[in-house]
Amino acid sequence: MDKLSEFEPIFYPKSVAVVGVSANEEKAGNRFLRVMTEFGFKGKLYPINSDTNEILGLKAYPSLRHVPEPVDLVNINAPARFVPQIIEDCVANGARAAEIFTAGFSEASEDGRRLEDEIVRLAKGRLRIIGPNCFGVYCPRGGLTLLPGPKYPKESGSVAVISQSGGWVTDFIWAGSGHGLRFSKVISYGNACDLNEADFLEYLAADPETKVIAVYMEGVKDGKRFFELAKNLLGKKPLIIWKGGLSETGKRAVDSHTGSLAGERVVWEGFFKQTGAVMADGFEELLDTTAIFSHFPHGAGRRVAVVGGGGGVGVAASDICERVGLKIPASSPEVMERLRAILPPVGTSVRNPVDVGAPMVPSPLFQEVLEILLSWDGIDTLIIDRMFFYGIPQLVGAPDTDTEKRVQVLTNVAAGTRKPILAVLGELSSGIDMIDIEVGRRETRQRFREAGIFTLPSIHRAAKALSNLCYYYETALPRNR
Amino acid sequence: MDKLSEFEPIFYPKSVAVVGVSANEEKAGNRFLRVMTEFGFKGKLYPINSDTNEILGLKAYPSLRHVPEPVDLVNINAPARFVPQIIEDCVANGARAAEIFTAGFSEASEDGRRLEDEIVRLAKGRLRIIGPNCFGVYCPRGGLTLLPGPKYPKESGSVAVISQSGGWVTDFIWAGSGHGLRFSKVISYGNACDLNEADFLEYLAADPETKVIAVYMEGVKDGKRFFELAKNLLGKKPLIIWKGGLSETGKRAVDSHTGSLAGERVVWEGFFKQTGAVMADGFEELLDTTAIFSHFPHGAGRRVAVVGGGGGVGVAASDICERVGLKIPASSPEVMERLRAILPPVGTSVRNPVDVGAPMVPSPLFQEVLEILLSWDGIDTLIIDRMFFYGIPQLVGAPDTDTEKRVQVLTNVAAGTRKPILAVLGELSSGIDMIDIEVGRRETRQRFREAGIFTLPSIHRAAKALSNLCYYYETALPRNR
Repeated sequence: MDKLSEFEPIFYPKSVAVVGVSANEEKAGNRFLRVMTEFGFKGKLYPINSDTNEILGLKAYPSLRHVPEPVDLVNINAPARFVPQIIEDCVANGARAAEIFTAGFSEASEDGRRLEDEIVRLAKGRLRIIGPNCFGVYCPRGGLTLLPGPKYPKESGSVAVISQSGGWVTDFIWAGSGHGLRFSKVISYGNACDLNEADFLEYLAADPETKVIAVYMEGVKDGKRFFELAKNLLGKKPLIIWKGGLSETGKRAVDSHTGSLAGERVVWEGFFKQTGAVMADGFEELLDTTAIFSHFPHGAGRRVAVVGGGGGVGVAASDICERVGLKIPASSPEVMERLRAILPPVGTSVRNPVDVGAPMVPSPLFQEVLEILLSWDGIDTLIIDRMFFYGIPQLVGAPDTDTEKRVQVLTNVAAGTRKPILAVLGELSSGIDMIDIEVGRRETRQRFREAGIFTLPSIHRAAKALSNLCYYYETALPRNR
Repeated sequence: MDKLSEFEPIFYPKSVAVVGVSANEEKAGNRFLRVMTEFGFKGKLYPINSDTNEILGLKAYPSLRHVPEPVDLVNINAPARFVPQIIEDCVANGARAAEIFTAGFSEASEDGRRLEDEIVRLAKGRLRIIGPNCFGVYCPRGGLTLLPGPKYPKESGSVAVISQSGGWVTDFIWAGSGHGLRFSKVISYGNACDLNEADFLEYLAADPETKVIAVYMEGVKDGKRFFELAKNLLGKKPLIIWKGGLSETGKRAVDSHTGSLAGERVVWEGFFKQTGAVMADGFEELLDTTAIFSHFPHGAGRRVAVVGGGGGVGVAASDICERVGLKIPASSPEVMERLRAILPPVGTSVRNPVDVGAPMVPSPLFQEVLEILLSWDGIDTLIIDRMFFYGIPQLVGAPDTDTEKRVQVLTNVAAGTRKPILAVLGELSSGIDMIDIEVGRRETRQRFREAGIFTLPSIHRAAKALSNLCYYYETALPRNR
């Protein structure tokens, strides 16, 4: 059986049974059932509970053995000691797969490890298992969500996430969807007693819906296979990995969390070098990097032009770009001459970084500057910082109709170029009384995104994400070809 | 004359003349005059304009020579070529100081340099100058603001800022005030043709209102004096410096921006080591570090306990804390035993980082965990991450009254301890439709701040700011005593 059809009942189940579901709305089983209904799961839902005939308007069954058809996916929330019996029921039902949310297995104790070994033995060759100690699967196309997920985007997308932490998965979907990411499959896989990181990576490599793969991982179950799969992905689908526990203190935390062996930093550095997978350093960088890969599927080049509303912006951009391996070439004589012809002679700079003097320059001037830089063949990518002060009327107490015009200019210009454009949209004010400014920022970000412009909240984050993108397309790919 | 009285007319002027002010509301002079009025300047305002008798309801004078009294501070917005004449007028008026916003001097060209030399010669011994090519001074206690600043906080505070970039100054006040910072004096000093970074630092060292000093600087005019002053500040007032232009590309940008010599990285590293000044890497770190110094005036210690709602949080905290030199000691046997007695046996960790299992734990349990950790003498500082999901009802579609209770628990616990507490309040969703979540975050942040709890938006930023604080109190101070 090929990978895609093997995972069909997990990601696109026709029926889902929920074991360990009570009428108590606070309990995980009940919440999961409710969330599946709200999210709009189209298949059959079977609550399993021996005390009642109905939960949330759905007919309940005393056990899986009473369910009138083989179930595709069984969601298990019952306490750990009951799980082996439930697995036997799954097998008796002819169920195809189970996601076990319950914790208290190998990550917790020796007794837990024995329980986990037992369920593996019972399921072997008959039932595939995700977890235990996981949050399960979110697959919008399959109508499947994980806790707490009734408000996750219902549209499908091209980003897949595999994570050993359920917490990071939920945060990633929330934060990522606000930034415009949409997901194909998100998998919290916990202890990986059966299906592990390599199985999911193999599936996602073949999955036509998935274009970019983000991973949070603390240890590996099947390192050799994962390595080979990661290596084979290079040039096909970018793989971005945040490896937790690379410090000594972090290793101890990994042991407490998932009971994994975190491994040595030098081994992991070798892994990244040899596979061409992109290493992300922390949650924000995993998010930013996944987003930029998803936004620019053809990559970007390292030679950057920077346009700033003020000279301090250019200095900051120069320092961080150089540190992360981006280049800011000095303007060519022709570019300098053309810029000099239009920019005021004082308070500006025509070298690269280009300083247009202030954020509130007239929009026609802004447009000319952008066009001159984008037509210069000495650069691959354009970064714009400190040019969009969406909150300016509120902050300055004066109207500035030109902010709107400058947003329009940038979206127009972006439509006419193939060079990637990044705009830094910083948090201008974080005061409670200035929430309108944040609304303006989010609206501007969405307009830019729709126009193909990538946005991040600081030049540091923008430079790091861009550098990861360039690393993949300009270093990792050519090196391994 | 001592430093404080010499700067009296600059920070607390009884009268301000604005030269280069027209009736056109778009022009800087007019905007500055309007902004000063709106901000509530209590002294005399003298618009200088030979074409009209009145601007914004204020009597206008054809030149400074016609103003009936010597003016404390003259604000100059006129084109560069007129400035020498205006300086002569200032001297004739008996004015004490001038802030020259106009650009087009030494930073722009050789002609500009000659003009600048001329105004220095004309003013020498008679008039102090800030600028040219600057944004001037914001001093709420003096009723003085800079452009664009009608909405800056009117309350005074303990943070002073000296900056060679006007743009960073305005961003710093906006972002900082939202994070609860209040300012004593903020100075954008531009080309520093007369008063330079050393003069301002000397003043701020003596200024009783200023407790923490933040600096953005590209080069120095009077390096030796600045070094001595910085050295003398150690142990009296923390000095945090973001030095722009430490990269090769950055040096070029500095030359275009302020015409300063950026200097070599190795020289600056020696400066920081020998003075005990704290080095901030970029805008966010300058902001975060200034805020944490201002928040914890007695410093903090490096031994950290981390409480997380989920195990992935602890792994991330461990990795970043170790990297920036913070310690996360393993829980003592007694602490482990006490935590084990109250935490569920599965899905949690009693080692440090402590994983309470999920963000939504019952508030009495949360309180006990905090009390156990704060009473442990093996740690100095407490970090809490992923425990406050202010937006949870909207995200999960279910009520969670306990978030409010957990916020209350933390503020209560903070009132009963002298150990610094940091709470990470991440951006849960950045969707436009989820702006209420951002409002909840800002409100929670303000409540925490009022309760003495310091907040930052990510564990990376929290760890870096805390590490800078610890560096100052545990390394720089003891080394130089």
